[in-house]
Amino acid sequence: AILAAIAAALGPKPLSGRHVIVTSGPTHEPIDPVRYIANRSSGAQGTAIAAALVDLGASVSFVTGPASVPPPPGVRVLPVETAAQMRAAVMEALPADAAVMAAAVADWRVENAAAQKMKKDGSGRAPALSFAQNPDILAEVAGLGADRPRLVVGFAAETEKVEEHARDKRARKGCDWIVANDVSPATGIMGGAENAVIVIDADGAETWPRLPKDEVARRLAQRIARALAWKEDA
Amino acid sequence: AILAAIAAALGPKPLSGRHVIVTSGPTHEPIDPVRYIANRSSGAQGTAIAAALVDLGASVSFVTGPASVPPPPGVRVLPVETAAQMRAAVMEALPADAAVMAAAVADWRVENAAAQKMKKDGSGRAPALSFAQNPDILAEVAGLGADRPRLVVGFAAETEKVEEHARDKRARKGCDWIVANDVSPATGIMGGAENAVIVIDADGAETWPRLPKDEVARRLAQRIARALAWKEDA
Repeated sequence: AILAAIAAALGPKPLSGRHVIVTSGPTHEPIDPVRYIANRSSGAQGTAIAAALVDLGASVSFVTGPASVPPPPGVRVLPVETAAQMRAAVMEALPADAAVMAAAVADWRVENAAAQKMKKDGSGRAPALSFAQNPDILAEVAGLGADRPRLVVGFAAETEKVEEHARDKRARKGCDWIVANDVSPATGIMGGAENAVIVIDADGAETWPRLPKDEVARRLAQRIARALAWKEDA
Repeated sequence: AILAAIAAALGPKPLSGRHVIVTSGPTHEPIDPVRYIANRSSGAQGTAIAAALVDLGASVSFVTGPASVPPPPGVRVLPVETAAQMRAAVMEALPADAAVMAAAVADWRVENAAAQKMKKDGSGRAPALSFAQNPDILAEVAGLGADRPRLVVGFAAETEKVEEHARDKRARKGCDWIVANDVSPATGIMGGAENAVIVIDADGAETWPRLPKDEVARRLAQRIARALAWKEDA
């Protein structure tokens, strides 16, 4: 770790002068003042990516839900709780050269969240929750006109048909890359130290070996640096 | 803290030879492999109570949901995730001299939890969740016959009409005491370091000052020791 830190400090800074927005962690969607809907994202992969981007010289706006790991040093931290707050923070952080949307954003929020704690009424029936679809931050950022980051990277956490779902997602969202992984409980990836990803881009699918999340982050940051340099030249 | 530890180590052990079950933390109720319903309980108050009971010599079975604070030293830890698992762990830990049910148990679980990650279907409508009422662990333990702990303590986390709701709850559950507190976000109690409680028993309501959670725990452990001694003599 010390050698890696020295290498990073002394190494080339291909992202110097670049601004990258990274989203990370879960979102929490309130049901009432004490209950909420959550997901099992720890924020570990998003945090590692933000750190790796900083190592390459990027200026990082780190929009993070309530993660179980602390934000990395050197980023501008924008803490949020809900998907709606995450969307607002991302929009405010624009413009950016790249956006890496690693957060596990809740697809739905509770439309009739209660101001007071919901009580059992003795009927045995639960209060009816109605859901509204959350803003699709990835699709929205990927669909921006002049303000669109030159590189928009989405994530897909799947439990089945990982590559197929990820390809569909890339097409549907209009982003440049999808980093897909299998978060089935048996893989130990969600909340774990390692990740096994497939990177989908316009040219196809790149299957990476199972690696520590830090190493996935380092490779992804380098790939981002190359892509931005290439887009600059093009 | 050092003085307190020495005092506890040298002090009287009125709960020596007593077995106390303490539940603590939130429960998580799965929606699908990555999503779940949670609540804002940190487990801090339940953990402090278990530690204070150990200080008074009790043997503590600590049934804990996914809390954000670690279990205290000296307890037997029984980790659970859902309310159903918590019920099973409590039943297995019986018999006990006292049960302190400090966990924030989810009232409902998702009856149609999915084996695979639920996907947006493009309709904008959320998958319908149907809820089933969870087992009422407090009422069940309080209603046991020969196996009932001599002292059953419940907790009430309220956001309005705290004392009134707590009195109702004590009567409805059949427990001996209810420790009630106001967890409105403005109080900073849920997830915070302090607590302001009202202890409801057969004789009425005792309003305690706002105190560090450790001190609430110490007072409550002493009250439990006195009650068990008194019940022994009676």
